[in-house]
Amino acid sequence: MQWWLAQCQQPNHEFRLRAEQRQLQLTKPTGALSELETLAITLASLQQSEKPNIDQPWITIFAGDHGVMEENISAYPQAVTRQMLQNFATGGACISVIAKEYNATLQVIDCGSVGEPYDYQGVERYCIAPGTANFIHEIAMTAEQCQEAMQLGAQSVEKALSSNASIFVAGEMGIGNTCSASALACLLLNEPAEDLTGVGTGIQQERLQHKKKVIDQAVQRHRDFVQDDAFHALCAVGGLEIAAMTGAYIRCAQVGLPIVVDGFISSVAALCAVRLNPVVRDWMLFGHQSAEYGHVRILTELQAEPLLKLNLRLGEGSGAGAALGLIRLACSLHNNMATFAEAAVIGQQV
Amino acid sequence: MQWWLAQCQQPNHEFRLRAEQRQLQLTKPTGALSELETLAITLASLQQSEKPNIDQPWITIFAGDHGVMEENISAYPQAVTRQMLQNFATGGACISVIAKEYNATLQVIDCGSVGEPYDYQGVERYCIAPGTANFIHEIAMTAEQCQEAMQLGAQSVEKALSSNASIFVAGEMGIGNTCSASALACLLLNEPAEDLTGVGTGIQQERLQHKKKVIDQAVQRHRDFVQDDAFHALCAVGGLEIAAMTGAYIRCAQVGLPIVVDGFISSVAALCAVRLNPVVRDWMLFGHQSAEYGHVRILTELQAEPLLKLNLRLGEGSGAGAALGLIRLACSLHNNMATFAEAAVIGQQV
Repeated sequence: MQWWLAQCQQPNHEFRLRAEQRQLQLTKPTGALSELETLAITLASLQQSEKPNIDQPWITIFAGDHGVMEENISAYPQAVTRQMLQNFATGGACISVIAKEYNATLQVIDCGSVGEPYDYQGVERYCIAPGTANFIHEIAMTAEQCQEAMQLGAQSVEKALSSNASIFVAGEMGIGNTCSASALACLLLNEPAEDLTGVGTGIQQERLQHKKKVIDQAVQRHRDFVQDDAFHALCAVGGLEIAAMTGAYIRCAQVGLPIVVDGFISSVAALCAVRLNPVVRDWMLFGHQSAEYGHVRILTELQAEPLLKLNLRLGEGSGAGAALGLIRLACSLHNNMATFAEAAVIGQQV
Repeated sequence: MQWWLAQCQQPNHEFRLRAEQRQLQLTKPTGALSELETLAITLASLQQSEKPNIDQPWITIFAGDHGVMEENISAYPQAVTRQMLQNFATGGACISVIAKEYNATLQVIDCGSVGEPYDYQGVERYCIAPGTANFIHEIAMTAEQCQEAMQLGAQSVEKALSSNASIFVAGEMGIGNTCSASALACLLLNEPAEDLTGVGTGIQQERLQHKKKVIDQAVQRHRDFVQDDAFHALCAVGGLEIAAMTGAYIRCAQVGLPIVVDGFISSVAALCAVRLNPVVRDWMLFGHQSAEYGHVRILTELQAEPLLKLNLRLGEGSGAGAALGLIRLACSLHNNMATFAEAAVIGQQV
């Protein structure tokens, strides 16, 4: 049996009940903090703690290049993948600033980018492949490559766990990866590119139409190979970074580390993870509803209601990262507000 | 001329343009941070700064009691107003925890609550009136009382300014004050209670119907007195804390201090402020869309799109306070992300 099919942890029902009880006693009208209450209660059950916290968030950015870039489907050249890897590590990228803001550890993993070997400080370089193959002609990854990528994701989670991380965010970088994510979504949901493809980093209308054609073509080529299997879908049209995120999410659920899911690409990886091992869903919080067309459809499939809707469309874990502040606040409120008894405040009179 | 009609500061166009330019150079696809970009740009123009920041947020809670409580329109007894004042000051309330989370100064002002004199540490007690009069029978406040309350609000802003506050949040506490705020909204928008009245802290259906009747009756009584004037509306059905918030908002715009508006009651005060002095609107950010029925209508009137929608319905500045984390993040991103040139990343290729 593959490791990713192994059993996940279960959220703790006892801690959930205790957290619910505590919320009822805090000095506010019943339910008045709504989603912030739900967050704290969920986190209490996941962390098995009276005092849920995200004092040590862990963020891993998985990067990879995409063979389908040959089809001219992005607004940016492929070289930007590596340039951004350096930017993450040197502190200039959005997610770098977010990590600093919330005292998070930021790990940067190159799962397989195009180009010569390099040595950037702060970037862990693997080369499972020099980018995926162009999925319009062949499968993007072999089963071995896909497994290796998933394993990289799992290793990040192990590292986070051994560093006492309290919550896990996976982000991605890979020029062309909305194309891969949309193709994956089409295969998993059995829907046309038209319904699941957006402008990514910002392509114009004409190129968007072309991108959709590329995706529909790839889906048609690989449907028989994939059947309804998420692992085969990843091999067929996925990316190394998307497979890594899928592996990371599953491992989080297996070791009991709560997840904050980011935007469109991360959510497609989340969907792959849930298809492979459904209990993984219980370990996911959703940070942000992206402006990328198709994200809402994926969120609906995952029955997810993200905390934020700020029209971000950046990836790199930015939407999940931006939600860390709210999650931390929800914990602080849960842990530090006074009860009616402590504050000598009269409770509700029906 | 009344002080609140005096001219407001104007947002700085030059700093807006510079901030827009900077956002275009940061290492992300153009516009990819969407609302976080807008926030930073707006704040740059309001603070007249290359580096907008909210390092020193200031939160004032204005409290007051309401004569209309005689009509049995709330789920909580009036004594809770004072009990919560103590809870704010001793650190057990939601807004106390939020203030600590974001390193904000928390000022607590009792504009006029019902009961004997008291001395709670950390609460500034005024007694403009022992609560408002019951507006179903008479006007809630005399013109003098309303002016005094507005003046209290203005004084808070002066104090914030002299403490180098970078942003101002007004919160409120006053059992019964959604009833007052709904009545105010009905008068200002010329709409029935049905469209602008919600459950407040959580009343049942029957009492909600009763609350609406009370409001419609009050509106009918005072319409001729009010005409279309926001000051008269405040006198007729407002609250001391609502008038204080109105005064605070106007003074913020006059001295050039950005505002974060909270939920339903705060937004009604914001509407009063904008009716009295329209440029005040330019100084307002909106933190949160409350679950209180009627808030959406007020936001629409103010052409406001809040940052958060978490279904909070607590007041005390909690929704605006919860948004402080995002505003701070928007500033950090604006100030600390690398430019394409700094990071040697290739920009967009159309």
